[in-house]
Amino acid sequence: MTAGQPPRVKVKLGENNYGKAEVNLMKIGRDTPRHEIRDVQVRVAMTGDFGAAHAQGDNTDLIATDTVRNTIYGLAKEGFAGSIEEFGQELIAHFVKTGSRVTGGFAEFTEHLWERLPTGDGQGHAHAFVRQMPKRTARVESGDGKTFKVTSGIQELYLLKTTQSGWEGYLLDERFTTLPETHERVMASSVTCKWEYAVDSCDYDDVWQRVFGQLQATFPDHYSPSLQNTLYRMGEAVLNACPEISRIWFQMSNKHHLVYNLARFGLENRNEILHVDPEPYGLMEAWVERAE
Amino acid sequence: MTAGQPPRVKVKLGENNYGKAEVNLMKIGRDTPRHEIRDVQVRVAMTGDFGAAHAQGDNTDLIATDTVRNTIYGLAKEGFAGSIEEFGQELIAHFVKTGSRVTGGFAEFTEHLWERLPTGDGQGHAHAFVRQMPKRTARVESGDGKTFKVTSGIQELYLLKTTQSGWEGYLLDERFTTLPETHERVMASSVTCKWEYAVDSCDYDDVWQRVFGQLQATFPDHYSPSLQNTLYRMGEAVLNACPEISRIWFQMSNKHHLVYNLARFGLENRNEILHVDPEPYGLMEAWVERAE
Amino acid sequence: MTAGQPPRVKVKLGENNYGKAEVNLMKIGRDTPRHEIRDVQVRVAMTGDFGAAHAQGDNTDLIATDTVRNTIYGLAKEGFAGSIEEFGQELIAHFVKTGSRVTGGFAEFTEHLWERLPTGDGQGHAHAFVRQMPKRTARVESGDGKTFKVTSGIQELYLLKTTQSGWEGYLLDERFTTLPETHERVMASSVTCKWEYAVDSCDYDDVWQRVFGQLQATFPDHYSPSLQNTLYRMGEAVLNACPEISRIWFQMSNKHHLVYNLARFGLENRNEILHVDPEPYGLMEAWVERAE
Amino acid sequence: MTAGQPPRVKVKLGENNYGKAEVNLMKIGRDTPRHEIRDVQVRVAMTGDFGAAHAQGDNTDLIATDTVRNTIYGLAKEGFAGSIEEFGQELIAHFVKTGSRVTGGFAEFTEHLWERLPTGDGQGHAHAFVRQMPKRTARVESGDGKTFKVTSGIQELYLLKTTQSGWEGYLLDERFTTLPETHERVMASSVTCKWEYAVDSCDYDDVWQRVFGQLQATFPDHYSPSLQNTLYRMGEAVLNACPEISRIWFQMSNKHHLVYNLARFGLENRNEILHVDPEPYGLMEAWVERAE
Repeated sequence: MTAGQPPRVKVKLGENNYGKAEVNLMKIGRDTPRHEIRDVQVRVAMTGDFGAAHAQGDNTDLIATDTVRNTIYGLAKEGFAGSIEEFGQELIAHFVKTGSRVTGGFAEFTEHLWERLPTGDGQGHAHAFVRQMPKRTARVESGDGKTFKVTSGIQELYLLKTTQSGWEGYLLDERFTTLPETHERVMASSVTCKWEYAVDSCDYDDVWQRVFGQLQATFPDHYSPSLQNTLYRMGEAVLNACPEISRIWFQMSNKHHLVYNLARFGLENRNEILHVDPEPYGLMEAWVERAE
Repeated sequence: MTAGQPPRVKVKLGENNYGKAEVNLMKIGRDTPRHEIRDVQVRVAMTGDFGAAHAQGDNTDLIATDTVRNTIYGLAKEGFAGSIEEFGQELIAHFVKTGSRVTGGFAEFTEHLWERLPTGDGQGHAHAFVRQMPKRTARVESGDGKTFKVTSGIQELYLLKTTQSGWEGYLLDERFTTLPETHERVMASSVTCKWEYAVDSCDYDDVWQRVFGQLQATFPDHYSPSLQNTLYRMGEAVLNACPEISRIWFQMSNKHHLVYNLARFGLENRNEILHVDPEPYGLMEAWVERAE
Repeated sequence: MTAGQPPRVKVKLGENNYGKAEVNLMKIGRDTPRHEIRDVQVRVAMTGDFGAAHAQGDNTDLIATDTVRNTIYGLAKEGFAGSIEEFGQELIAHFVKTGSRVTGGFAEFTEHLWERLPTGDGQGHAHAFVRQMPKRTARVESGDGKTFKVTSGIQELYLLKTTQSGWEGYLLDERFTTLPETHERVMASSVTCKWEYAVDSCDYDDVWQRVFGQLQATFPDHYSPSLQNTLYRMGEAVLNACPEISRIWFQMSNKHHLVYNLARFGLENRNEILHVDPEPYGLMEAWVERAE
Repeated sequence: MTAGQPPRVKVKLGENNYGKAEVNLMKIGRDTPRHEIRDVQVRVAMTGDFGAAHAQGDNTDLIATDTVRNTIYGLAKEGFAGSIEEFGQELIAHFVKTGSRVTGGFAEFTEHLWERLPTGDGQGHAHAFVRQMPKRTARVESGDGKTFKVTSGIQELYLLKTTQSGWEGYLLDERFTTLPETHERVMASSVTCKWEYAVDSCDYDDVWQRVFGQLQATFPDHYSPSLQNTLYRMGEAVLNACPEISRIWFQMSNKHHLVYNLARFGLENRNEILHVDPEPYGLMEAWVERAE
């Protein structure tokens, strides 16, 4: 502090957490010749009484983030027998038990999905795989290491339909509206979603598959008057198919496929030649919830 | 719905918003031969009464996201005379006024900073620029279009020091701790931060510069016993230098620079040869706030 | 030029080209209710007599890159009835014909592949799709606009096998070799490849599918003593299955899946718990060619 | 191979190389309290007699890519006293000497540049730094481990000028030209360049600084009739200022800043409000060479 600066003000630590991010872990099940793989990127963050570390530089009883990494790999060996949602609970419970200053935390997962390489018999290869889109996600949060709030999700499911979509009847701002109405357009969206549970535990893998199936089935099953309406219908379908889920959140980008103006070149364009505009895009976010 | 599925459940719309993302806008001030530029990526999202659009596909009085884009460019011409923080307020106020269903919303900015190209006289070029790191950010949120919560920030300020950093005295977990203690290490962090204001309005550009200066001055001015402590000191310095700021949040990654084991090759390594490990990294998040 | 600088040297233009990059184009076939889509990112570059433009700033007879863009969309409407390899030839031929200074050029394509959304009857949806990995690529080059060198490829085919791979018998450098030999490891690779043709034209779509099939069939069908050997076998399989192809080039990264050292924690690790190391990676590049 | 497939054809190995990519290395000079840092990402690839490894899976005398990594760090300690261009030569020479099958190879560097944090005395901090743009690159190639072809470069130097640029007099294609001519536009380019040397060795750091200075000085010093002409002028300036350089290659993207059509909203737009279009972009590539 040099002369002329204001006198030192009193400060305090607010909400905080720390941990390890981008821990890339693969677990291979080798119990039978037909191997199983789980390929995840993990972030673990701890919450608790970390005031002395911040304010005084006192690291007493702090779990090093390097220890967090080691623990993730160690517990993956001893546990992680099921879903990422369950593994997240194992991790948080462990850190709360181990660190006297740790009272809670969260674990976040991004899971890469792999498909067995094709074989003649249709069974898929026993130990060879090819990576797929989209990605599966999960987040487990706890304030005490005993009770957990679990969220699951899907990342970057890129869907498109070439017809049965429109955008009409909206506000015609006298100054700034230039977009013409249409009942025939291409609709494309990179869908990210996450959902919360109405139950304490369930078959998370099975729920994920059901959600994934509902999104793919609902996206094309209706004329879409707006991305918002399709979002809502997808949420409704998920809540119908999955009694385990209490509510679901979508972030859906509207990836604009603009009809390129070919009339200037003496060519007709019946929605056949489109500019896939990377930017900007409409972006819709909403929760769809059970009504009672 | 096919046979065998559960009866249709009742659903409702929860929290939601929509708008336009990744609107890339440059505004050039040409009033004098010494031009000024602002280069921003904008996201605007509106909140309000959008239930009919979601549930019934009724778009009545909805502002199209294409209109949002046009408006951003149009208002940038008429307004945007000052900071992104002020432009965000202009935008949200406009949409609340324009859309009968819009009650609020938020605007987010990522601003690319440019420096004048060097000239012999040290003044910098009048109309030629080179892009810089880090980036400036802002977020403006409002529930009514009249009162605003403003947050400002810095993104990807990558700092490093080659000494005056250590990590000691932490919990030695009997099983999972393998990291040796050290009082001499390289510390590197990609700093992202954001702050809230104690005042209704201020010179946002000037505050940003002061924060930027404090981060650069504080990062190296002490022996760092942990990234957490350095984070806290940076927050303290900012709150001292900027009475306009009520609290500041940091997300600081600990980019590990690992001393490469050269002893295996008969070579000594006095912290000179390091592996810059991209993954995993420690990740610290905390608010530093005024104590009273 | 200021005083003290060396006298002006004579310079000339060397090899050069210009054009438009990242033109994102979708073409939808709507002739029947079962729609077809092609989703490509195109770069077109022209070569020719562009000396005056560079040296004197004389743009006479230069085709604007904006015209290149318009032309890509226009010709996509009139042509692009088949593969990207054929469309590339249409494009280059057009620019050579149109621009008096243009003598040749190249067109590069990255094609996003889409799969029909699943339907109950196994036929796939008539107009709704989900985006897939990997990507298809092509490059068409010509010096005269009449004869063409065509290259096709696959980008980012991420393959992994959990066993039947090793790395033994290599040079044990007395100083710098620390890696132990193994006959049991995980092998993973993000495969990029491209191939040249022995024929003037062929069914490019069909060839691509055969190559894709061969890569997936060959990758797991042997014990792999090295990524190089697997690369070679994949090349051999492709040349066997595709008489249309003269040679094929692979770039295969060796994505290291490191057995995490759990012995430190009293745990056995039989290749089950692995660190998926993002960096560094082995990188192999080779052409596999017909022997006579 | 199953029945019905064509008989096995003879194949052979073509041009090939292998090595390690994305080796992230920092070297810190600690000889005085004023530390120096070099922060590089390295790729090393070896060429030579690798036929047996590919065709027979015989790894005899092959240098493991893990050994390549160890060697990069080890030699960085023993050597790397100067520029990346010289370090590349040390590396390739080493691998040719060490591997009986290795006859040559190449080393590629991407160097992150750091600036000292500001201090009151204008000297910059002794051991604290902030990362800068653009990046410095180099490539060293050799067929024998004794003679080297060195290329140096700059990556992602993002330049912009708000005036003194136009695009006129080009070909007006009767069908596909829609762009109006202009003598007043914004010109922006992300410049990547690389140069070859007329001398066997020189002060590579000093040359790099001179090139960097010339690019920044030349970009704004003229009215630009085209990006091609500015590219050529930048090349001419570099060849004038750097007798060590034989020729220089540029890849310059034309990042279009489109005047947003505000007339539709009753607003005049004198090149003030622009859409920074991310895609597509003009892309120019050219060598500028000494004329005799």
